[in-house]
This record gives sequence, C-alpha cells and structure tokens, in this order.
Amino acid sequence: MSFEPPLPKAEQDETDELRPKFNADGLVAAIAQDAETKEVLMLAWMNEEALRTTLETGRGTYWSRSRQSLWIKGETSGHVQEVVSVQIDCDQDAVLLHVHQSGGACHTGRKSCFYRTIDPEAVRLKGE
Amino acid sequence: MSFEPPLPKAEQDETDELRPKFNADGLVAAIAQDAETKEVLMLAWMNEEALRTTLETGRGTYWSRSRQSLWIKGETSGHVQEVVSVQIDCDQDAVLLHVHQSGGACHTGRKSCFYRTIDPEAVRLKGE
Repeated sequence: MSFEPPLPKAEQDETDELRPKFNADGLVAAIAQDAETKEVLMLAWMNEEALRTTLETGRGTYWSRSRQSLWIKGETSGHVQEVVSVQIDCDQDAVLLHVHQSGGACHTGRKSCFYRTIDPEAVRLKGE
Repeated sequence: MSFEPPLPKAEQDETDELRPKFNADGLVAAIAQDAETKEVLMLAWMNEEALRTTLETGRGTYWSRSRQSLWIKGETSGHVQEVVSVQIDCDQDAVLLHVHQSGGACHTGRKSCFYRTIDPEAVRLKGE
C-alpha cells in the first residue's frame, strides 16, 4: 500500500483517492473517538507507516514523536484500540478513528486525555 | 491573560494550571466537537492569541496557517462556533472544544470536515 501525493486544493477536497497530506515531519494528526459514547479520547500523530499499519491491522497505531518510533497503542499497557472506521478530513492532513478502547486511552490511566476543563474566568483547570 | 510555560512531564499531566505546550510554530491542535451530537467537526490550530480570544469571547477562533493570521471562525462565512467548553489534554498540546456550530464547520459547506471514510481494503475514500 503506497500513497499518492496530495492534489491542488479543491481537487484534494473532493477526490475519492486517499492522498494524505503529511506535514514537514511526515505526519498527519489522528483523533481517536470512542465508537459508542463518541467521547474524544486522544490526539496523536501518524506517519505513513503508522497509517498503513492501522488500516492493515485494524489496531490503532501511531508515531511516537518523543520516542521517534512506531507506537502500537496498548502494546505495553494492554490498552489496545480496535479500529471500527477511519475518516479523513477535507485537505487530508487529519484522520478520525472510531475505536473500541480497552482500558484508558490516556497514559495517565484515565479514559480520555481530555480530563481537564479550562475555566475561562479564572484560567485554571478543573479536574474530572 | 498570559500563559505560564509547561512543567516537567508528570507535573504537566496533573497541574490545575493552564500551561499550554505550544509547538515550534507556536501552535496547539484544536478539535471542535458538536456539543449535542458529539460529531467531530474539524481539526484546526490555535496560537496563544487564538486560544486567549476563544476563552475571552466564547467564539471559536483559530490560527490560519495558510493565511498566517487570526481566524475568527465564521467571520466571513457566518458559520460561527459558540463555544460551550474547552478541555485540554494531558500534556496540554491539544484542546477540545464543545461547540454549537452554525451552518457547516467545513469550508466545503459540509457539516464536518471528516466526510470521507477510508476503505482499508481498496484504500479509496467513500463519500457521505
């Protein structure tokens, strides 16, 4: 499986071909959303290999920017992501995964990484 | 409103202080999710001014990387985003907005930017 390069702007929006627009670091953003509850679980990154592996295996696979290596979600924690579907956005620089998440998606053990709400009045964070 | 710098790893995960971790371009990722339907609408970017403006005005405001300027969502299209809440992730390099979206969130006129599903067998895109 290899990917074709992006098309000019409006064509990219309407093509039915997968033409991911990787950034200067070779990455697209990837949002994982719980397939049942619709809760947004995490935002991570995929390089070409991670996207290909996710599509081929049906397991959420990312690129770890801190470790600079492929990161099969749950490989060490057991908190795997079974991928139900993968959608891509208009300019094809972001993907949205609907997943069945085992355990917490967050490395802190929480279900979602988005566990703090910003209080716009105080500009502090309110916990779960 | 000014932002303090990020803390070391585990402290950043647990602090109740807002300490956004802007990337080398001075940006955090921002996911907009429909507050009622929970549909993920778009992924965009915020610099410090965009985040501050979003919190102060309650209107989804981003940084346009293509135009290199502040982008008050809906300013030209009328498709404004009324922000219900803003959550931030563990390492504070991504935010999640729950919004009431007027009209389509996508510049193509569609409700969501994620209107195409990748067919992992064929590696083509299936439309709405």
